[in-house]
Amino acid sequence: MAPTRIDANTSGVYIISPTPFTDQGEIDFASTDRMIEFFIEKGVTGLTILGVLGEAPKLSSSEAQAFLKHVMQRVAGRKPVVVGASNPGTDNLVRFAKEAMDLGAAGLMIAPLSGLKNDDQVYAYWEGLFSRLGADVPVCYQDYPQTTTVFSSVAVLNRMIADFPNFVMLKHEEGSGLPKITKLREHAEQGKGRRISILVGNGGLYLPQELRRGVDGAMTGFAYPEMLVGVCEHFAAGRPEEGEDLFDIYLPILRHEQQAGFGLAIRKEILRRRGAMASSAIRHPGPKLSARDHQELDELMARLERKLKG
Amino acid sequence: MAPTRIDANTSGVYIISPTPFTDQGEIDFASTDRMIEFFIEKGVTGLTILGVLGEAPKLSSSEAQAFLKHVMQRVAGRKPVVVGASNPGTDNLVRFAKEAMDLGAAGLMIAPLSGLKNDDQVYAYWEGLFSRLGADVPVCYQDYPQTTTVFSSVAVLNRMIADFPNFVMLKHEEGSGLPKITKLREHAEQGKGRRISILVGNGGLYLPQELRRGVDGAMTGFAYPEMLVGVCEHFAAGRPEEGEDLFDIYLPILRHEQQAGFGLAIRKEILRRRGAMASSAIRHPGPKLSARDHQELDELMARLERKLKG
Amino acid sequence: MAPTRIDANTSGVYIISPTPFTDQGEIDFASTDRMIEFFIEKGVTGLTILGVLGEAPKLSSSEAQAFLKHVMQRVAGRKPVVVGASNPGTDNLVRFAKEAMDLGAAGLMIAPLSGLKNDDQVYAYWEGLFSRLGADVPVCYQDYPQTTTVFSSVAVLNRMIADFPNFVMLKHEEGSGLPKITKLREHAEQGKGRRISILVGNGGLYLPQELRRGVDGAMTGFAYPEMLVGVCEHFAAGRPEEGEDLFDIYLPILRHEQQAGFGLAIRKEILRRRGAMASSAIRHPGPKLSARDHQELDELMARLERKLKG
Amino acid sequence: MAPTRIDANTSGVYIISPTPFTDQGEIDFASTDRMIEFFIEKGVTGLTILGVLGEAPKLSSSEAQAFLKHVMQRVAGRKPVVVGASNPGTDNLVRFAKEAMDLGAAGLMIAPLSGLKNDDQVYAYWEGLFSRLGADVPVCYQDYPQTTTVFSSVAVLNRMIADFPNFVMLKHEEGSGLPKITKLREHAEQGKGRRISILVGNGGLYLPQELRRGVDGAMTGFAYPEMLVGVCEHFAAGRPEEGEDLFDIYLPILRHEQQAGFGLAIRKEILRRRGAMASSAIRHPGPKLSARDHQELDELMARLERKLKG
Repeated sequence: MAPTRIDANTSGVYIISPTPFTDQGEIDFASTDRMIEFFIEKGVTGLTILGVLGEAPKLSSSEAQAFLKHVMQRVAGRKPVVVGASNPGTDNLVRFAKEAMDLGAAGLMIAPLSGLKNDDQVYAYWEGLFSRLGADVPVCYQDYPQTTTVFSSVAVLNRMIADFPNFVMLKHEEGSGLPKITKLREHAEQGKGRRISILVGNGGLYLPQELRRGVDGAMTGFAYPEMLVGVCEHFAAGRPEEGEDLFDIYLPILRHEQQAGFGLAIRKEILRRRGAMASSAIRHPGPKLSARDHQELDELMARLERKLKG
Repeated sequence: MAPTRIDANTSGVYIISPTPFTDQGEIDFASTDRMIEFFIEKGVTGLTILGVLGEAPKLSSSEAQAFLKHVMQRVAGRKPVVVGASNPGTDNLVRFAKEAMDLGAAGLMIAPLSGLKNDDQVYAYWEGLFSRLGADVPVCYQDYPQTTTVFSSVAVLNRMIADFPNFVMLKHEEGSGLPKITKLREHAEQGKGRRISILVGNGGLYLPQELRRGVDGAMTGFAYPEMLVGVCEHFAAGRPEEGEDLFDIYLPILRHEQQAGFGLAIRKEILRRRGAMASSAIRHPGPKLSARDHQELDELMARLERKLKG
Repeated sequence: MAPTRIDANTSGVYIISPTPFTDQGEIDFASTDRMIEFFIEKGVTGLTILGVLGEAPKLSSSEAQAFLKHVMQRVAGRKPVVVGASNPGTDNLVRFAKEAMDLGAAGLMIAPLSGLKNDDQVYAYWEGLFSRLGADVPVCYQDYPQTTTVFSSVAVLNRMIADFPNFVMLKHEEGSGLPKITKLREHAEQGKGRRISILVGNGGLYLPQELRRGVDGAMTGFAYPEMLVGVCEHFAAGRPEEGEDLFDIYLPILRHEQQAGFGLAIRKEILRRRGAMASSAIRHPGPKLSARDHQELDELMARLERKLKG
Repeated sequence: MAPTRIDANTSGVYIISPTPFTDQGEIDFASTDRMIEFFIEKGVTGLTILGVLGEAPKLSSSEAQAFLKHVMQRVAGRKPVVVGASNPGTDNLVRFAKEAMDLGAAGLMIAPLSGLKNDDQVYAYWEGLFSRLGADVPVCYQDYPQTTTVFSSVAVLNRMIADFPNFVMLKHEEGSGLPKITKLREHAEQGKGRRISILVGNGGLYLPQELRRGVDGAMTGFAYPEMLVGVCEHFAAGRPEEGEDLFDIYLPILRHEQQAGFGLAIRKEILRRRGAMASSAIRHPGPKLSARDHQELDELMARLERKLKG
């Protein structure tokens, strides 16, 4: 069976996966297996590995390869796996991308290089990149200016959607980007360009509003993926208010997990508490939870439990 | 009666007030009056005017003066009024600060100059500023790096608290700043420095967690100030879970209003719909709500209404 | 006589004028007169006042007005005067612009608002601005990303040149912007758009290379304007190597004056030593020269003197 | 013979070495050998490899290892070699650092992680780093905020110099940093802290002024290293004016090579023209010289030749 690949019609929840480490900082492959099963049990559509929150920049080339291979073998075609491939050097990006696709990846997630300053520079970077990747490799464009400092305009995105057929998905996570979604969708609806898949990031902080504006789902991390799955299902079934009701139950802890810099430590700790990994260790440099932070998380998780029961 | 001034023991809710404009872009003094009464009715402790969200940088010197005078006369000592005085030039800052204090302001809100790069530069800037303001003028330090790009370390804040007695209040709104609150409070509790008032910003997005960590209230904008007031009262009365319950009802719309750049337009529109001002106009350059944005707000406000009834 | 206005054919040296202050920080109008005469004696084509290096953001609205009036009266039509009008609020920008034009300004120098992130945002800002200014007011676009953080792409500049006839001049001072000049000139030479005036900034650090690439002169500050004038004259007369020879003599001190942040203090001090103003005071917050900095300047000025004597 | 290591008394010129590539983008080891001999012939004190301008972030882990080994073997103890080791992940940084030291490196050049916001964060990062590297590994701290966005204050530098004995050298390249040098030197001269080696970067754009203020030499890239060597020798021999005279001859082309982003392409091209490498190729993404850029370089190199003769 040919592995599934992402395309312009992809929808659902692609969970951004952390990279589990032991307390000593080594990749924890046993926890990786538990985490994969945890995500599949919660009903995700696919997985995305080796993103920024997967601490990919803190892995050596060989660690990233080993993690990639391990995940592909464990998932074994049960779910599509998108692979983060951002890299300051295009040669190494393309080499790693090829390895990922050869191993059966569903596509690549790539962010524009940090430091691109305007539409000319954004377009030139991607033109070089798309031409080297080849037209048969589907790409999810990670539009995440909070980290990259690159603010991709609607105009340059539409231009690239027109020019590069393998630009099939946008991971939309520009802060305050609700009008951007509407502009992109209107452009396609008015017949001015291709409609591509849009999945949202930022932990899903605005997921219901984004679904109402026409996105196809989420590609984000959140320690309770069942909420993302449930909300998307409600919306797909024409029950937006039920979707919002479910969302609101989780919003306090989602907002807590969504804190810049600090949030990954919270997410890994919740995943640990839920049995998805053995340690919540983050590699240096990275945040560490204090006793006070743990107590705060106790309170928020207890409140969530009460609400889910009530 | 001598006007109330903020000090290191100040607590409660100081609402950040927008500046109402007519649809033609003139300051709307009639709406200013309505807005003031609206805020007082909702139970706020005080008002803060002429901050960034008050579009102060888009007022001329004489407009800012006129608005200041008008507000002071209308409030007429019923509530303390903190006056935003940030200015790229210290001479004009000090001149305006003096006018505000002479008119009965409760204190000044000042942010570090955008572009300060490290502790040496932050300290040097404030040393110059505090020495010119005079020791009798109470200052609220607006710690808002998302806008100023100045990340004030705990060390430099503690050093300034020790050196400048008129540094009486911190408006804490560094993103992901929960551990910062704990560090500041521990420093004071361990007898290493003065305890000052900490009020939080960012729309109150983490208000319950911040109150649990020892802040004294909020100095922020939100179109439903009664929630901020209610939450602070619950916490002050030892009912944190009730405080969180109330908070959670408003969280979906609070999160919506908290969007960077876009949020002020939403806030002004809700205030308009609630009768607090005649127009939600924002001066150029600034965001404008589209029909789609209005529809989204309709839905969120309707959901809030239902929850409040339910 | 109708006052001269800048247009798409303007060339020469428009000297960016500091604002002279007394040691007590008041605007020094007597020194302003001396400075104006100094610049005119050195042969400049025109003057530009109230830019960033004129400390415009540290002047109150009324101070800026007073300085503007004083300069216009003193210059009295002998040279065209371009007036800096950048302002965070468009209403106040337009009001001040109108005052300047009514007083006989040759045009306005305006920078894009700090914080614009991409071509869509840049275009939208200027569209709003040009439409309010009116088509008869000639504008010099200050392309200075080191201060504004706005990197205007060649594409968006060409689009605006096509759409707004009063966009007549580019003050080019993007760092490492030599290829940008060539791209803009080629666009016009290939008949794809209007040719506008390009004057360069950054103290003229790359002036000879920029003149070779087709710019029309300089709009910049430098405490030895006679060099800028001489170099432009040599190039205009077809003597580029003589132009470069003259430039190279001044390059060590030009490079010294061109230091970010620190440079304005050096420029004002050289102007003071040369008799163009009574004090080199800069308003707070701003740099101050130490004894060590003065000694360094002594050495560099002495070296220049020796080289000029030959 | 034990290999030489950098320490607090190191002086002279450590040339920042590019990484030569073939036109196809592979590391060009033959050119690496030519470049090493070129630098040694020009009289440099030592070499620094795998910095930002060595395109280290665009090398895979194994490419960096191979380049490191090759250089160490070729240099063969004739000159000390400092190795760039900056890495977003500390585990990989430490692993590579150990390999470099085992191969005989003279020390490491490390920049603070991009994104550190203030003194607390800077100190915490380096504390973690120094403790893992071990006290016997000499470190050169690359203080280069133009690239890292980290502005290390004098206070935090002095604190780290006091606390970490293996902090032996500062690569000073903060823009406009002349007063910073004086403050660091005065701190040591007043007996408040250790004196460490300071070598300057930024192509040496302010080298004479920096030497007068007490730095020990340069660690920078420049396609004419003989100038850096000559200037340092003149200053060491008490001939500062002769040093400045030599410097001034090269300043026009130094300033040209010093352009942000664009400059590395110019430097590699000059080195190619001078016979130090076979190709001036830069890996994607990176600048490329146009025909117009080449012509400009022709002119500047011809002017330099004439001046050196004349």
